Amino acid sequence: MSENTPQNVEQLSVNTIRTLAIDAVQAANSGHPGAPLGAAPMAYVVWQKFLRFNPQHPEWPARDRFVLSAGHASMLIYSLLHLTGYPEMTLDDLKNFRQWGYHTPGHPEFFHTKGLDATTGPLGQGAAMTVGMAMAEQFLAAKYNREGFPIFDNYTYSILGDGDLQEGINHESAALAGHLKLGKLIWLHDDNSVQLDTATLKAESEDTAARFRAYGWEVLRVQDGNNLAEIGAAVQQAQENKDQPTLIQVKTVIGFGSPRAGTSKAHGEPLGEEGVAETKKALGWEYPPFTVPDEVRQHMDAAQRGQGFEDAWNKLMDEYRASFPELGKEVDAVLAREVPANLAEILPSYEVGGKAMATRNASGEVINALAKVLPTLMGGSADLSGSTKTTIKDGGEFLPGSYQGRNVYFGVREFGMAAAGNGLSLYGGVRPLVGTFAVFADYLKPAFRLSAIQMQPVTYVLTHDSIGLGEDGPTHQPVDQLAMLRSVPGAHVIRPADANETAAAWAMALEYDKGPTALILSRQDLPILPRNHAGVKKGAYVVKDTDSTSGEGAQVILIASGSEVSLALDSADALAREGVNARVVSMPCMEVFRAQDQAYRDSVLTPGTKRVAIEALAKMPWYEWVGSGGAIIGMDTFGASAPAKVLFEKFGFSVENVVKTVKGIL
Amino acid sequence: MSENTPQNVEQLSVNTIRTLAIDAVQAANSGHPGAPLGAAPMAYVVWQKFLRFNPQHPEWPARDRFVLSAGHASMLIYSLLHLTGYPEMTLDDLKNFRQWGYHTPGHPEFFHTKGLDATTGPLGQGAAMTVGMAMAEQFLAAKYNREGFPIFDNYTYSILGDGDLQEGINHESAALAGHLKLGKLIWLHDDNSVQLDTATLKAESEDTAARFRAYGWEVLRVQDGNNLAEIGAAVQQAQENKDQPTLIQVKTVIGFGSPRAGTSKAHGEPLGEEGVAETKKALGWEYPPFTVPDEVRQHMDAAQRGQGFEDAWNKLMDEYRASFPELGKEVDAVLAREVPANLAEILPSYEVGGKAMATRNASGEVINALAKVLPTLMGGSADLSGSTKTTIKDGGEFLPGSYQGRNVYFGVREFGMAAAGNGLSLYGGVRPLVGTFAVFADYLKPAFRLSAIQMQPVTYVLTHDSIGLGEDGPTHQPVDQLAMLRSVPGAHVIRPADANETAAAWAMALEYDKGPTALILSRQDLPILPRNHAGVKKGAYVVKDTDSTSGEGAQVILIASGSEVSLALDSADALAREGVNARVVSMPCMEVFRAQDQAYRDSVLTPGTKRVAIEALAKMPWYEWVGSGGAIIGMDTFGASAPAKVLFEKFGFSVENVVKTVKGIL
Repeated sequence: MSENTPQNVEQLSVNTIRTLAIDAVQAANSGHPGAPLGAAPMAYVVWQKFLRFNPQHPEWPARDRFVLSAGHASMLIYSLLHLTGYPEMTLDDLKNFRQWGYHTPGHPEFFHTKGLDATTGPLGQGAAMTVGMAMAEQFLAAKYNREGFPIFDNYTYSILGDGDLQEGINHESAALAGHLKLGKLIWLHDDNSVQLDTATLKAESEDTAARFRAYGWEVLRVQDGNNLAEIGAAVQQAQENKDQPTLIQVKTVIGFGSPRAGTSKAHGEPLGEEGVAETKKALGWEYPPFTVPDEVRQHMDAAQRGQGFEDAWNKLMDEYRASFPELGKEVDAVLAREVPANLAEILPSYEVGGKAMATRNASGEVINALAKVLPTLMGGSADLSGSTKTTIKDGGEFLPGSYQGRNVYFGVREFGMAAAGNGLSLYGGVRPLVGTFAVFADYLKPAFRLSAIQMQPVTYVLTHDSIGLGEDGPTHQPVDQLAMLRSVPGAHVIRPADANETAAAWAMALEYDKGPTALILSRQDLPILPRNHAGVKKGAYVVKDTDSTSGEGAQVILIASGSEVSLALDSADALAREGVNARVVSMPCMEVFRAQDQAYRDSVLTPGTKRVAIEALAKMPWYEWVGSGGAIIGMDTFGASAPAKVLFEKFGFSVENVVKTVKGIL
Repeated sequence: MSENTPQNVEQLSVNTIRTLAIDAVQAANSGHPGAPLGAAPMAYVVWQKFLRFNPQHPEWPARDRFVLSAGHASMLIYSLLHLTGYPEMTLDDLKNFRQWGYHTPGHPEFFHTKGLDATTGPLGQGAAMTVGMAMAEQFLAAKYNREGFPIFDNYTYSILGDGDLQEGINHESAALAGHLKLGKLIWLHDDNSVQLDTATLKAESEDTAARFRAYGWEVLRVQDGNNLAEIGAAVQQAQENKDQPTLIQVKTVIGFGSPRAGTSKAHGEPLGEEGVAETKKALGWEYPPFTVPDEVRQHMDAAQRGQGFEDAWNKLMDEYRASFPELGKEVDAVLAREVPANLAEILPSYEVGGKAMATRNASGEVINALAKVLPTLMGGSADLSGSTKTTIKDGGEFLPGSYQGRNVYFGVREFGMAAAGNGLSLYGGVRPLVGTFAVFADYLKPAFRLSAIQMQPVTYVLTHDSIGLGEDGPTHQPVDQLAMLRSVPGAHVIRPADANETAAAWAMALEYDKGPTALILSRQDLPILPRNHAGVKKGAYVVKDTDSTSGEGAQVILIASGSEVSLALDSADALAREGVNARVVSMPCMEVFRAQDQAYRDSVLTPGTKRVAIEALAKMPWYEWVGSGGAIIGMDTFGASAPAKVLFEKFGFSVENVVKTVKGIL
C-alpha cells in the first residue's frame, strides 16, 4: 500500500469504506458488518465513477438518486458520505454509530441525515421507492425538458440485498418498472447468497435473472464483486440501455475478509475485537481504527466535481429561464412545492340542500379543479380509478415511453403504488396521489408508515370507507383501518362529512407538508352541509348547536365523522323532539384537532358535557374524545354483505339507536 | 340443446353455472359477472372431473382443497356448491346473492358458507393460502402416512385472476411453493387480459409463464378456455407432475357471451336486463331465470361419489387406527385440535427474582416445551428465527422434498408467511406459528385480518416490541403496530410482562380457537414477576396493591403491559416513598379483559380511581382504560436509534416521569 498508484488508491478507498464500517459496528457493539464488507466495491464504483451529486448541497434537484435498499448496511453509505465530503457526516458521527444525537442511526433516516435520498431498512421498499423516483424524472423531463435543455436528466441507483428481492413488493415494483421501461433505473443486487437465518438456498430457488427478464428488464452479471473494472463496465452498459431498467447481479461474499465471510453469522452482529483485527489483516490494513488515509480523502473528496455538476446545471437553468420564462417560473414553483394562494377560490363549492353526493365523487371534482393549477399533481389508483375517482380528465396516460401523462395505471399493486408515491414525492417537484379502497390500506401500510417517517406529503385517496360500501362484504369493508392509519405519528387522516368538507380536506392535504394525508371517502351519497373550511381545517367544529331560543346548553355532544355526521344531525333533530338538546360536532381530522389550543378544543367539546361518538368503524380512536361516562357507536365486529342501508340499520347506525344510546347515558 | 348427449350436458352444465351467476348478479344489481362467464368451463372441469369432496360433509378432512382466489367471481363457486348438492346452498340463496342473512355474500366467506375452503376477495391471498394448505398436506403426509396408508393425500387447486398475479404476495407465495416443490398444488390462471381499470396491457407486460418457470413451476397453457377436453388434459398433466407445482394458463374471454365480452366493462357491474338477455341468447339458453335443467342437476350432483370418497377414506382410517393405534389416536387428536389438559404442568415456570429474561427467549422455551406435546405445532419466521426464537429444536427442517420437519424457512416474505399460516390452519390438523419483528406486522396485516375474519388460531410471534429494541432505530421500532393489531375484531393481542406471563400467553393462544393471537415480545431482558396464570388469562390483573397496612385504598392505578409493568412496579415503590399509594395492574390482553364481567373489571380498575397507563407504543388503545382525568405515558412520535436504556429515558419511560405524571393528575 505504499506506492500511491491509481489502482492502489482505489483498493485503499474500498478498504477504507470497509474498515470504517466494521470499526463503527464494533464501537456500537451493534449493527451489520457483512453487507458493507461485501458491497463496498460496487458502492465505491457507483459513487466514485458515476453518481452526480454535490456534497455541499445535498438537495440539489438534478442530482442522481442513490438508495441503499438494504438499509441495514447503513455504514456503507455513512462511510461514503463522510469520504465524499458531506460536511455534516463527521468522523465523530461514524464513531458514534447508532447513538443518540448523531447522524448515523442504525438504518438510514431521510431528514435526519443529509445526503440520503430515502429512509430504508424495511426490506423491499428502498428499491420500490426508486421506481417512483425514476418515474418522477421521466414525468418532469417529458413535461419540462426542451431541445437542448435536459434540465431533468438523472440516473437512479439502488443496491438491493437478497431479502429485498424476496419481498412481495419487489415483484410489484420491478414489474411496474419493467412495464414502464424506466431505462434510467439501475439496480445492483448484492448477490451474496446468504440471509439472516441461513444460506438463501434453504429459503429460495428462484432464477432471479429470468424473473427480471420476464418483467422486461435487462439483466447483467458481474462475476467478481471485487473487480472494480467489471462493475464499472456493467454500470456503463446499464446507463447506455435507455429502453429498459437494468438489474446488475454482482456476485459478492458477505463479510468479505472477515473470519465469518460467506456465512449468515457475518450478517447482523459485530465481528468482535479479534474478528475486526483478523479482517483488517486479511485486507492488508495497517491503520488504527477510524483512519482515513490522506490519499483516500483526497481521491474521494467530491466537493469540487460536485460543485462543477451543480454550476453547469445552474447555468443551464438560467438559460432555460431566459428562453422559456413561463416554464422557468413553473419549474421553480413546482420544485418549491408551491400551493396557489387563492386555493379557496379554485376549490368547488356545493350548495346546502343540493343533490347528495358521495365524497369520492366530490374528491374527483376537486382533483380535477386542482389539476388545473397544480401542473405536477399526478398519480393514480391500484386498478380502481373508476371507483376511487382519481382520474385527471385530459391529464393523459402515463405509459411506457410516453411519460407526460398524469394518470398512472399502477395495476393491482397497492404497496408498490404507495412506495412509488413516496419516490415521486422524495424526488421533488411532483405532488403524488395514490388511491385504493380504504380496506386495502392494509396492503400499503408499510409504505404509508414510510411516508410518515420521511415526512412526505403523499395524498392517499381511500374510498369505500365503511360498511356503507354494502354488498362487497366484510373483506372489503374497512373496520380496523382508521385506527391503523390514525395511530401513525405525523400522518393526517381526514374523513370528510360531505362534498364541502372534501374540498377543505384536499386543501389541508396540499397545505400539510410534514407527512402524508389519507382522505377517507364514501362510496355512497351524502347530503351537503354548509361550507365551513375554517372549521374543517381545525380538525373538528360545531356543525349544529342546540336551539339558542331554548336558553339551555347542550346536554350531550354527538361527535361524528364522514357519513355519520348526517346521521348525528338527524339524531339531534329527533332528540330535540324529545326535549334533549344535542350539539353536533363534525370531527374530520383528530390529529389536527388535537393540535389546537385548549381553548378551541374546549369550545367544541365543552368540558363536563357527556358525549356520544358515532363512526361506522372500530371504536378505538374515539375513547380519547368521549371520556368517561360517554358512549361510542362503532363496529365491534366485521361487517357483512348486504345493501348499505340494511347494514347501517343492523349495526346500529340509525337515529333510533343513537337516541337510545344518548338516553342511556344521560 | 334437446339431445341429451354427454357433450351436451357438459356444455349445458357450464352454461348453467354462467346463467345462475349472471341472474344472481342481476337480481342483486351488484356483483361481478365477467369472471364467472369466462372461467365457468375451467371451474366445471376441476369440480366435475377432478375434485374429491363430499357435499354432505363439507369438512371431510381428506377432501381436495379448492380456493377461488379471484373472490369477486363468487357466484362461480356458489353456483357450483348449489349444483353439486351442498344442502345449505339453496336456489333461494342464489336468488338472494349479496343480501342479509343468506349464504351468498359478495365475496366467499369461510365459516359463513359451507363448502368454502377459505375467505377470498383481497387479491393474491386466496392462492397464497393454498400454498399453506399444500404444505400442511405434505407435512401431515410425511408425518403420518405409512406404506399402504395414504391418509393425507389430496390436491389443492386455485383459480387466479390477473389481479391476483400482480399482487406482491403472489411473488412470495409462488416463489415459496416453487422452492418447496409442492407438486400437488395446481393453480389455474383465468387469463383474460382485462382488469378493472383497463386492458392489462396498460398496467403490465410481464411474461407470467417465464416468471413462474423462474420459481421452479411447471407452466401449461390452454389456448381455448372453452375447450373442456383441453382443460382436462392440462389438469391431468399437472396432477402427474409431483415434483413441481403447476400453473395452468387458461386463455379466456372475460364476460364470455355478453355484449361486453373482452372489456373491462364486463368486470364489476351487472349486465343489465338487456345484457343478460343478449348473453343468454348468445349461449343458446332458453330457460327462465335461475333455472337448473334436470339433466344438469342429475349430471352434477356429487352426493353419491362424494360419499363414496369419504367412505373409502373412513375405511382406510379404521384400518390405520387398527394397524397403528398410537398414531391413529394422535391423528384423531390433531384433527380435533386438542390441547393437553395438563398444559399448566407442561409450561415452564420461572422464579421471582431469578435471572431477568427477554420474553422472546421465554417464548422460545415455551415453544419447545409445547412442541413435545403438540406434534403438529410447526412454522417459522420470515428470516428472523434467530431473533424471534421460533425454532423448534430437534424439530427438523421443512425443506423441498423433505416435509417432516417442523421448522419452515419462510424467507423474507412476511405476508406470504402469514397467508401460508392461514392455509396451514385452514387445512386442519396443523397448529401454525409465524414470526417476525413486531414492526413488520405491517407487512402481514392483510393476512392477520384474514386470520381474524376466518377465525383461524394462527399464533403470531412478534418480537422486538417497542423502542426497547434500541439501535435499529425508528424503521424497526413498533409504535403504531399494536393499535393496528388490537383494532382487528376477534384477534387477541397479548403483551406479556415477563417470562411467566409469556407462558400463560401461550396457553391462551392455544386455548383460543376463534381467531389469531399475536404475542408481543421483548427483545430486552425483563425481571421475573410472580406466576399468576389465572390473572393473565383474564386479560388484566392486579400485580401489586397498595400497602395494606396503610389502611388506605389506591390513590392511583398504574396500568401497564409488557416491559412497562416492571417500570410501573418501580414507580409504585417510588410513589410509596412519597406517600402516594399506587396499585399496579398488568394488562397483557385488552380484548380478553374487555370480555370479563363488570364485577371483575371493577375489581381491577376501581371505578373513580384515577389511572395512568404506561406502554412504550402509540397511546390510542389506552384511552379506553384511563378515562377522563387520567394520563397516558406512550409514544407520540416515532422512536430513534440509540441503546434502549437511553431511549426509555429520553421518551419518558422512567420512574421520574411516571412519578411526575401521577402527581400531575392527583
